[in-house]
Amino acid sequence: MFEHVRANGAAARADITRALDISAGSATTLTADLIAAGYLCEVVGPPREQGRGRPPVALAVVPEAAHVIGIKLSYKSHTAVLTNFAGEMIADLTLPASDKRLALPDLMEEVVTLIDRLLALRDLGREDIHAVGIGMPGIIDPANGLVHWSSLLQNRDENLAAAFAVHFDMPVYLDNDANALTLGELWFGAGRAMSDFAVVTIENGVGMGMVLDNCLYRGAHGMGLELGHTKVQLDGALCRCGQRGCLEAYLADYALTREAAVALDYAFDDIRSRQEVLDVLLREAEAGQTAARTIFRRAGRYLSLGLSNVVQLFDPELIILSGERMQHGDLFVTEIMEEMQEMTLSEGRKPCKVAIHPCADLVWARGATALALSALTDTLLGGEAAVG
Amino acid sequence: MFEHVRANGAAARADITRALDISAGSATTLTADLIAAGYLCEVVGPPREQGRGRPPVALAVVPEAAHVIGIKLSYKSHTAVLTNFAGEMIADLTLPASDKRLALPDLMEEVVTLIDRLLALRDLGREDIHAVGIGMPGIIDPANGLVHWSSLLQNRDENLAAAFAVHFDMPVYLDNDANALTLGELWFGAGRAMSDFAVVTIENGVGMGMVLDNCLYRGAHGMGLELGHTKVQLDGALCRCGQRGCLEAYLADYALTREAAVALDYAFDDIRSRQEVLDVLLREAEAGQTAARTIFRRAGRYLSLGLSNVVQLFDPELIILSGERMQHGDLFVTEIMEEMQEMTLSEGRKPCKVAIHPCADLVWARGATALALSALTDTLLGGEAAVG
Repeated sequence: MFEHVRANGAAARADITRALDISAGSATTLTADLIAAGYLCEVVGPPREQGRGRPPVALAVVPEAAHVIGIKLSYKSHTAVLTNFAGEMIADLTLPASDKRLALPDLMEEVVTLIDRLLALRDLGREDIHAVGIGMPGIIDPANGLVHWSSLLQNRDENLAAAFAVHFDMPVYLDNDANALTLGELWFGAGRAMSDFAVVTIENGVGMGMVLDNCLYRGAHGMGLELGHTKVQLDGALCRCGQRGCLEAYLADYALTREAAVALDYAFDDIRSRQEVLDVLLREAEAGQTAARTIFRRAGRYLSLGLSNVVQLFDPELIILSGERMQHGDLFVTEIMEEMQEMTLSEGRKPCKVAIHPCADLVWARGATALALSALTDTLLGGEAAVG
Repeated sequence: MFEHVRANGAAARADITRALDISAGSATTLTADLIAAGYLCEVVGPPREQGRGRPPVALAVVPEAAHVIGIKLSYKSHTAVLTNFAGEMIADLTLPASDKRLALPDLMEEVVTLIDRLLALRDLGREDIHAVGIGMPGIIDPANGLVHWSSLLQNRDENLAAAFAVHFDMPVYLDNDANALTLGELWFGAGRAMSDFAVVTIENGVGMGMVLDNCLYRGAHGMGLELGHTKVQLDGALCRCGQRGCLEAYLADYALTREAAVALDYAFDDIRSRQEVLDVLLREAEAGQTAARTIFRRAGRYLSLGLSNVVQLFDPELIILSGERMQHGDLFVTEIMEEMQEMTLSEGRKPCKVAIHPCADLVWARGATALALSALTDTLLGGEAAVG
């Protein structure tokens, strides 16, 4: 019920009972408890649609009841967002980050700097923050705050929650970055009008999140939705994970730059970083250079294949395509959409909708605030109001 | 609640309230209604574990309250099972069927013969049957009884429910055969102890069913879980569906026999049917003939790849491998299991369990009775007791 009020900004008790199919009595008892605890308050609702009368009393989340920070960690920059208990953004900050794999203490130093400088923007102290949510690429165990593997870290099986506790006296909630983004879409984006959808992200790696029946789908052992490591070619291209033929090995930044030495023969010796290679490659493709276009063209075809597999298996109502690469998505996007439909057996059904959200890191970080808000709400309200 | 009683054979009211988390008052009211309607009855329950006292009263489904037939249609034979309302098998019958695609009226003639001869085994008439469930290969619209495409039918978009109604005055419930088998596992097999699992079937085609949270997962447009048509190779082998690179095109019977002319060069001219080709190919592979082994070896590797993709995306607690091919599964099964683990990024998590159920068509047909029982129960009890 609490999440319903937060998702809708404000809601009248009658709307709540209708939307959640609970009795008026239950709604009154529950809201009384939440108001007494200082998490909900009564506000003047929107005017009635029919009749005159005065506007009904509506319920709203008390914004000041808590503050949380959401963070997206990635290999070139980290982004943090500060929100209140109602999920409203109060401040945000992006800092450049290492483009190399770090030891955990070094990554944690970057997190400490990010949080402290974000708080300084609003003259707040660490004691004002109730929880932190972190989304990062890799294979994460959210229940135990462990990072089994991440492209940001030198070592496997790191205990990030423990490293965080060395610096901060507040809870941290960790998840895969695609899951955090998916939660962000569920709380603040497409999910407000939809109970089932998929999110596919393409940037340094390929990620996926899935909402089924308003909840994040995690699988039995928390290792589902690894779309980037589904195999699309037996004994195919080498992947960062050490296996062959993963979708990611045809699609991710490192997969594109792998062939750049051939495509950019004339200029390659002058290029230093992977980002620079990618930028030049992209520029050349846009200018029509054949080898560069061929690289993006194959990546696009594999993306079509990956999306058609998602449709063929999950059959979601909507796929949201997101991530940094989608900022240049127009290069092949029409072809990709057509090819995806061609590779999908639909037999007369409505084709799956695809929305492209070339979203900035801010949206991912906001998703990480949803991680923190969700877990915090669980703790504060005794686990009754969880979503995701 | 009704399904809980059926699944458990018999259950005490106290167990029901505990298992389903409903109040004792609700349980009493609901059971009184079901007893009055003749669907549940009181029986003597199992002895109490502790203390002496007399055994508690338990509730059981009234077996005679209804009878249903479940049918598995396939390209060499059809199998039908007759069960009572408690899901207990009373009779079964398998008849040979056409191995060619049929017009709908001709397929329906085979169904009519099958049903009438099954009923004759127990001196029953059509009027004794309350519903029929049919599982068949293809792309099915269960809600409308439509067959968009099936390897058994010459034409697309056939209305099977309407063709059935020409002959019978009882409802028919249609679904993809893999869904029917999955429902069978949920009701009568592994699902009795498990809320989330996948079923992958390999025979003339490759099928899949998935149970999430005790319900059959169907996707937003009813076209999910088409594992056989996920793409495992860009521009790969031609599939029956007309597309290229589908998993099925490397794994299904027709994919194996496609290369048989090369492998069985010396004997091929004497072979008539596809089944005969497959039988000879299998015999040769078991005898160690190199080309025949190579064919099965590649099919096995693609099966590993398909299963690893299922794990990577759905992360189920268990995969049940089923279908006719699994009766010869021992040919490569150890290699397949090892290769599947190798192709899965697990990062220290428990590997997904795989169970091989080389089940006969009887189990599929029994799954089709679950289709009928589930829908019938919905109708009789007003939609409150549905599972699947």
